[in-house]
Amino acid sequence: MNEFELINRLTRSLPVNKSVVVGAGDDCAVLDVGLPDRLLLFKTDAVVEGIHFTSAAAPEKIGHKALARCLSDIAAMAGTPTAALVTLALPNNFDPNLVESIYSGMSGLARRHEVAIVGGETTSNPERILISIALIGWVPRGKGVLRSGAEVGDAIFVSGELGGSLAGRHLEFEPRLAEGRWLAQHFSIHAMIDVSDGLAGDLRHILRASRVGAELLATAIPISREVRKAAKAESSNKPPLLAALTDGEDFELLFTVASRDAVPLLDAWRKQFPNLPLNCVGKITASDGVTIRDKDGVRPLTAHGYVHFQ
Amino acid sequence: MNEFELINRLTRSLPVNKSVVVGAGDDCAVLDVGLPDRLLLFKTDAVVEGIHFTSAAAPEKIGHKALARCLSDIAAMAGTPTAALVTLALPNNFDPNLVESIYSGMSGLARRHEVAIVGGETTSNPERILISIALIGWVPRGKGVLRSGAEVGDAIFVSGELGGSLAGRHLEFEPRLAEGRWLAQHFSIHAMIDVSDGLAGDLRHILRASRVGAELLATAIPISREVRKAAKAESSNKPPLLAALTDGEDFELLFTVASRDAVPLLDAWRKQFPNLPLNCVGKITASDGVTIRDKDGVRPLTAHGYVHFQ
Repeated sequence: MNEFELINRLTRSLPVNKSVVVGAGDDCAVLDVGLPDRLLLFKTDAVVEGIHFTSAAAPEKIGHKALARCLSDIAAMAGTPTAALVTLALPNNFDPNLVESIYSGMSGLARRHEVAIVGGETTSNPERILISIALIGWVPRGKGVLRSGAEVGDAIFVSGELGGSLAGRHLEFEPRLAEGRWLAQHFSIHAMIDVSDGLAGDLRHILRASRVGAELLATAIPISREVRKAAKAESSNKPPLLAALTDGEDFELLFTVASRDAVPLLDAWRKQFPNLPLNCVGKITASDGVTIRDKDGVRPLTAHGYVHFQ
Repeated sequence: MNEFELINRLTRSLPVNKSVVVGAGDDCAVLDVGLPDRLLLFKTDAVVEGIHFTSAAAPEKIGHKALARCLSDIAAMAGTPTAALVTLALPNNFDPNLVESIYSGMSGLARRHEVAIVGGETTSNPERILISIALIGWVPRGKGVLRSGAEVGDAIFVSGELGGSLAGRHLEFEPRLAEGRWLAQHFSIHAMIDVSDGLAGDLRHILRASRVGAELLATAIPISREVRKAAKAESSNKPPLLAALTDGEDFELLFTVASRDAVPLLDAWRKQFPNLPLNCVGKITASDGVTIRDKDGVRPLTAHGYVHFQ
């Protein structure tokens, strides 16, 4: 049983109440708290030593990553984060300076996005550091973007470049908060997710939620400098395209819009965010699953994104 | 460096924003989200296998405890919980049925208190199960109770009976949500906390936040049946009074009110909650620290509550 099968099993019959707009299964939970203009976003995310970072990683970057992952989920809903709680589970012999550095990395990122850190707790986890972040934020009513709105014919876009994040970017990425909000303010974004498991895996989350398929264009997938370098140095056996599709931890925005919006969106994006690439990587189809088109034709994409617990 | 010293060091200069009413250092964070009638409560709490429960504990009870601890913090603010996120960190060889049973224990408790479980995540923690709960709730403006409001002369009350929780109650306790709300609705509660580290330890949190001292009355401390049994069977070396003061994980409410309210409150409580004892265990003083009065006179109470990381 992998992570997603387990989650499906657990979320079949969760308790709900009338405040729940979106429960388990999207980037954040969405709650109606009675404010006329906005909805509350609620999210948790954890990073674990040896899995999401190594003990050799700079502690400031560990803290940065822990919070940035959670902020990225708010970005994928086109929301604005407001307050975070930090759970630090630590071995008994922890170094207080290391913990202070973790907090320093989190606090720097939080300040840049005007997120308050309003507490949390420390507890024991004898074998390894685990950091869980709980985050709340806001999205204007009618402007939140779910995974479930993709429509047949939509253009599929992804920000940035993909793959090779483990070379360093996974510890340093900036969550695409301004970009996510700008998109929802200026265009009708049908579906959006942040790329944490790899484009192939996260696109499938959109397709499943929207009950559609997709065709990707191989030559349009933006392959990162790190992947190209690794390919040149022959330090990886993974073909560059596969790395871009499946490496994971890119934390870019993957979204769909009606095809008529594709060109105006690209033009406006390039003016607004001249330093961040945006690529149309394919289209939403009525068929099941994902196909990829290259010079040899169209084939099913069988390579999944990274799945925990396999 | 123990847990509290670390927290003091970490919380010195956390990022804030204008929504923060109460940040780190109370039972929950309190946020003003622009609703005229209420404030948002925000809390996380984690339980770890081998520390907060053993691998022999029934998984339903583990789930119950994980959520109940967090609900107890909402109770201590006189609040009402509304939605929870669940982070499950699991060894790779976990049994899906065990995980489903943990969820079942949480869900049962959540339903009884009309708390929605709106998602969360699973991740890896190879050596042991860790469950972190993030919870939001509400408190009417002007009715929230902090740790910092105790005044010299206040009567100190505690609900229930204390000590011996490890014999089983720590896995089964019911968070005192109705009691906390009722108290704040009917009386001016000056300060409140839930007893998680033992009365001696948690009373000190109130005293520190309120810059006051306290005198406890030894004969008034409600000692649990489990502690009395252990003392009779000579299965514990801890004197019963010390066990009641320091065992921890009682999850009862500890609060202070003006002395003139003490008798009316006791009378009204006994009508409202006839099956739950309430005891006046002492008074708030102007001196530093905690003293305890018994038949031999007044002595400083040096026994601290349970402190993690010592």
